Amino acid sequence: MSFKEIQKDVNDWTKQFKIQYWEPHEILARVTEEVGELAREINSLYGPKVKKVGERDIHLGEEMGDIMFTLACLANSKGIDLDEAWQKVMNKCYGRDNDRYEKK
Amino acid sequence: MSFKEIQKDVNDWTKQFKIQYWEPHEILARVTEEVGELAREINSLYGPKVKKVGERDIHLGEEMGDIMFTLACLANSKGIDLDEAWQKVMNKCYGRDNDRYEKK
Amino acid sequence: MSFKEIQKDVNDWTKQFKIQYWEPHEILARVTEEVGELAREINSLYGPKVKKVGERDIHLGEEMGDIMFTLACLANSKGIDLDEAWQKVMNKCYGRDNDRYEKK
Amino acid sequence: MSFKEIQKDVNDWTKQFKIQYWEPHEILARVTEEVGELAREINSLYGPKVKKVGERDIHLGEEMGDIMFTLACLANSKGIDLDEAWQKVMNKCYGRDNDRYEKK
Repeated sequence: MSFKEIQKDVNDWTKQFKIQYWEPHEILARVTEEVGELAREINSLYGPKVKKVGERDIHLGEEMGDIMFTLACLANSKGIDLDEAWQKVMNKCYGRDNDRYEKK
Repeated sequence: MSFKEIQKDVNDWTKQFKIQYWEPHEILARVTEEVGELAREINSLYGPKVKKVGERDIHLGEEMGDIMFTLACLANSKGIDLDEAWQKVMNKCYGRDNDRYEKK
Repeated sequence: MSFKEIQKDVNDWTKQFKIQYWEPHEILARVTEEVGELAREINSLYGPKVKKVGERDIHLGEEMGDIMFTLACLANSKGIDLDEAWQKVMNKCYGRDNDRYEKK
Repeated sequence: MSFKEIQKDVNDWTKQFKIQYWEPHEILARVTEEVGELAREINSLYGPKVKKVGERDIHLGEEMGDIMFTLACLANSKGIDLDEAWQKVMNKCYGRDNDRYEKK
């Protein structure tokens, strides 16, 4: 029940607003925006990008949290149970993908 | 402690492989790929894209799970605690962003 | 006038269809999908991703062309002149960004 | 020869720097960042996102130009001829995809 609490946190916050959740395409655009910020952060931390003066030092974890938040909005707006989805991802790992990479 | 279990699931699976985690830029490219699959699914479900014959009907939840998985890899590889990051996101919601949208 | 011809190519092809251009959010989702395919290709060519049997060997150039095509759709649908936009990008390069990186 | 000039513009500017082109994964991360900025702009112009005070009014065309610029960097760094790639995209349009959408 890992994501249940996450999805509830998001619902508790969003339910105070007139429009609780945006449309799927609008949420997706927000995901794209947040992934873009993660990308900038990764180029700053591990790559060649020279930060402009004034660019805040954003922590990697928070950028990931923002993406998680936006995905939880999408899940909530469509009644998707992310714990169930996670179970499927894990089944795929131990099934189809279990021999995909070189073992120790 | 919502994400703790997620991060442990990912660690348990990846630790069997010779290269447990890719480099940050490589994981980011995978995030980009997975978000692209979510985008395709959203255009199929809620938009104009006509599916080619043979394109599988992938569930939205699983696409989100794949993104969560990839983000958890990045977090694990850099020792980031996603529950802590989530707390910061929630603090930002109830602080800076609490009057950003029209209330009910 | 470099992009003029590109935008005309796209217009000539799309004008045969009932819906000539999708909505901006739908085109953006397509851009996201195409960038995801570029990301997969880059992880295949320069990174760690092991291709599944049957994954086609897509050329990098074509993936870039697909993104250009989708951006040209967005530009055409909103009456944007990409040559004009390009001029602004170049001005930014030689102005604001000209001392951003270490010179030879 | 539409993209030839674009690729030359990019080469002319970048050749003054010690590192002319970043690595493919680094350029890809920059593409992801720029697409994120396009996404934010689209949610601002056509969607629900409320701009924070101080967010600049960036023109859609310039965001597209920034993506084109970054893709041209990738093409140049790998010796890819974008006009050739464009020809392939057009062939795919008039071939495989010509009956994909409802005609007028």
